[in-house]
Amino acid sequence: MDENMQDFIIIGHKAVTTGGFSLNDMPGSAGRMDILCRCINSVFFLSHDLRRDVQAHLLLLGEPNPPRVIRFNGEKLRYLNPDERSAGALIKKALDIGAISSIETRSTPGVWIRETDLSTMLSEFSSDGRKIFYFREDGEDIRSTSEGLKDGVFILGDHLGLTEDEEKLVMELSAGTISVGPLSLHADHCIILIHNELDRVAFDQIQR
Amino acid sequence: MDENMQDFIIIGHKAVTTGGFSLNDMPGSAGRMDILCRCINSVFFLSHDLRRDVQAHLLLLGEPNPPRVIRFNGEKLRYLNPDERSAGALIKKALDIGAISSIETRSTPGVWIRETDLSTMLSEFSSDGRKIFYFREDGEDIRSTSEGLKDGVFILGDHLGLTEDEEKLVMELSAGTISVGPLSLHADHCIILIHNELDRVAFDQIQR
Repeated sequence: MDENMQDFIIIGHKAVTTGGFSLNDMPGSAGRMDILCRCINSVFFLSHDLRRDVQAHLLLLGEPNPPRVIRFNGEKLRYLNPDERSAGALIKKALDIGAISSIETRSTPGVWIRETDLSTMLSEFSSDGRKIFYFREDGEDIRSTSEGLKDGVFILGDHLGLTEDEEKLVMELSAGTISVGPLSLHADHCIILIHNELDRVAFDQIQR
Repeated sequence: MDENMQDFIIIGHKAVTTGGFSLNDMPGSAGRMDILCRCINSVFFLSHDLRRDVQAHLLLLGEPNPPRVIRFNGEKLRYLNPDERSAGALIKKALDIGAISSIETRSTPGVWIRETDLSTMLSEFSSDGRKIFYFREDGEDIRSTSEGLKDGVFILGDHLGLTEDEEKLVMELSAGTISVGPLSLHADHCIILIHNELDRVAFDQIQR
């Protein structure tokens, strides 16, 4: 992993693992794929640009071929527009790849897919010395921990949150549990608040 | 207008003013309607709830029948899901109403449409004593003005920002120009940051 990189892991517990889903029914038959698409938007989009120093890892746990991880890399990413269908189309293309193994295959520029699970991903980040952060309403306020978040790995759940087992895995390796504010928010909204905090830290450092 | 209400005005310069657009092509032939749909998501959604004390006003300025304003009221709103198509379907239903005049017509629960322009809308808010805020990167940091934002009316542009004439109108009545952070962001992302600031103010007041 590069330095100066933020990584977001978003878990889609019902998100289907076949490219056969319809872009017209992502909340339904695609297993709330719409949530993951909105997270992709939040991770990458600036007003007239993409964020380059960031990656998104979508962990898809729905039928028929779980687990799949689709990695989006901001520096290499192409063909992404802000609308949900655009991210959905890139996810479809990745899932359409025939022989998916534990070795990554590139589907489109800046997008890779492999078969792996949360435990493996977390171990990889952890052995790279990366700090892993988990987001929950009862965590420490992001505004009091902001400098420490730099180059973090941020774990977010879909509408189902994290399962007990997933939470246990994350907590074992986690550098901290963070809260973005007083109310419980969707994952894509949390990502906006994390970015804003990190943007402010980066800007303050330039100003000094 | 009620007290304890935030209002968001989002201007869609190219957003079409006919219900005949396709939910499958909102970024294209519907004139970046996708932007307005994502703003609706940002204005209303909490993790497992809708925000009630908030309204969104979409100002649609595209062909063939501009200007149209669609008002969404959080307290009365029904049938809204987080995905873009869901907000798009409610916009379509509103635009499908036959005889739209300067008097509001309800299209679905919590959604009204009328023919009006930015100037009229701003005058109405202003004569109700509401504070109007404009968002621009060179504004005052939202974190230093947060308490003053309560019950505000927040003006946001689409991918084209505001025109010179619109900006002039807004600046004449505006209580302040606010920045959400060091980078220029999409309107739907700005809304998340405004809400977070106001959530923190409200929570701090409860804690006192």
